Amino acid sequence: MTRTIVASGKKEIAIGFDQPFCVIGERINPTGRKKLAAEMVEGNFETVKADALAQVAAGATMLDVNAGVTAVDPNETEPPLLVETLKIVQSLVSVPISIDSSVPAALKAGLEVAEGRPLVNSVTGEEDRLEAILPLIKKYNVPVVAISNDETGISEDPDVRFAVAKKIVERAADYGIKPEDIVVDPLVMPIGAMGTAGLQVFALVRRLREELKVNTTCGASNVSFGLPHRHGINAAFLPMAIASGMTSAIMNPVRPQEMEAVRAANVLMGTDKDCMTWIRSYKDYQPAAGGTPAASPAPADGGGGRRRGGREARRARTGG
Amino acid sequence: MTRTIVASGKKEIAIGFDQPFCVIGERINPTGRKKLAAEMVEGNFETVKADALAQVAAGATMLDVNAGVTAVDPNETEPPLLVETLKIVQSLVSVPISIDSSVPAALKAGLEVAEGRPLVNSVTGEEDRLEAILPLIKKYNVPVVAISNDETGISEDPDVRFAVAKKIVERAADYGIKPEDIVVDPLVMPIGAMGTAGLQVFALVRRLREELKVNTTCGASNVSFGLPHRHGINAAFLPMAIASGMTSAIMNPVRPQEMEAVRAANVLMGTDKDCMTWIRSYKDYQPAAGGTPAASPAPADGGGGRRRGGREARRARTGG
Repeated sequence: MTRTIVASGKKEIAIGFDQPFCVIGERINPTGRKKLAAEMVEGNFETVKADALAQVAAGATMLDVNAGVTAVDPNETEPPLLVETLKIVQSLVSVPISIDSSVPAALKAGLEVAEGRPLVNSVTGEEDRLEAILPLIKKYNVPVVAISNDETGISEDPDVRFAVAKKIVERAADYGIKPEDIVVDPLVMPIGAMGTAGLQVFALVRRLREELKVNTTCGASNVSFGLPHRHGINAAFLPMAIASGMTSAIMNPVRPQEMEAVRAANVLMGTDKDCMTWIRSYKDYQPAAGGTPAASPAPADGGGGRRRGGREARRARTGG
Repeated sequence: MTRTIVASGKKEIAIGFDQPFCVIGERINPTGRKKLAAEMVEGNFETVKADALAQVAAGATMLDVNAGVTAVDPNETEPPLLVETLKIVQSLVSVPISIDSSVPAALKAGLEVAEGRPLVNSVTGEEDRLEAILPLIKKYNVPVVAISNDETGISEDPDVRFAVAKKIVERAADYGIKPEDIVVDPLVMPIGAMGTAGLQVFALVRRLREELKVNTTCGASNVSFGLPHRHGINAAFLPMAIASGMTSAIMNPVRPQEMEAVRAANVLMGTDKDCMTWIRSYKDYQPAAGGTPAASPAPADGGGGRRRGGREARRARTGG
């Protein structure tokens, strides 16, 4: 059974087929958040701190930390800022960290100060990335996210994306890195632009699990890009990906609809033992307060009880 | 590609792997609804009519019609009542009907008056049921729901349930009934009582599809029996079952959370062409009005846009 071990200084968790889904909080990332980028450049980490606490409170298993505030001279600016951000986050929360950068010097600096066993996000199938990142992964003995694109970009052909993932796993093996320390991101396309995007990912995740025996992750909300009511699409995508074998996602845990879907999927995959997390989270749930109200009065027994009763009743009735 | 054709007098639809998920409205069923049973016995069909219209308005693909008002002398009472109920329902709505009874005489009477090509719900693997129902299926050339239990009851072993389904498909073939006219219900256990219930169903649905090439259905809400916030569990179960290959469910379409999950799953399976049903249904969706509110202010770009931008920005930044 594949298990990717990640840890903070205080806490170890496993990503795996038999584990609750690993929710990697995506919020601490200035890319596309101009205000956050400006704050971080100024040395103001109030939003970073608030996002760290809110994500953990909402149920994040891990936190992704990215300090890519600028495309100008990132080799100079990003390493010290990532180090500072990591120190602040790990002083505040006890969950494991995903160190997120495309700048090898920043990843190296981050790995120097990260406590426990962080996840590195990420390497791709591009030669220069493989050569820059894999030695760091080996040296620090940490797991890494492997994104299924290479020099030719992101292929629309899932077989090509699978081949890129396989190449990364094989190249990692050459460095002595085990498959359980590779978490493959098969890349999720927006379903609004490509109607086969969902089927592709579900099939890819299954193959990655069955053939390469690796854990998987993705930027889950990409799938709903451009559509109305994105949370509704995301909240169906996550259980579908989980049923196909996906074991983690980089996502916003502060969204109740998506987190509810993940918790329900854990129940249905049998990884929420005795449904205790579900029961604790929703025992006092009132649909009117935050959920989706029924359009008509609910029968006291609910649909399931009725159908169940129906079949049982029938059998009794006909003596079958 | 397996397609089960069902039709009313006015409308034909296909249940199939490449079709939008078939939502079979479960509401017209007096089992466990004492008030409805009493009304129907009195010849009052107001609730039946209201339930028919409400379910179609909510998006039901088909309607299940059951008139099992009493366990006393059903051979006498059920056939005329089922006939009357069917006539009322098919005069009111244009969707195909599922004729639901465990009384062969009632099914036969129903088949005499049903327009188009109704689904028969159901046969089991019990010898007396096979011998009573399959000749009707052949005679009227209609599809049938096959429930995976037999004389020994419902097995907790999914291999036994698969074997029962296989037996029914083979016995049907002896009568000249094709596999595409068998819609197998693999039976969904309550996850609160059996932690493997979800994994069992997902694996069974996949096997039924790959090995027997049949469409599948289930009483979807059974899975959440006994748990708090059942709609949340159901709304994850449906997409997971759909990703595993399930093509229909007997469910309550009047529940917005479950129907939203089904519509999103159709988008993600590529069966909602150009996402048009989703866009039509949710283009003006306001989370505050009926959905799950975010616990913190939403960034304008959403998580997906950000993550996407992040990877693209990174690539640009590092020239990789």
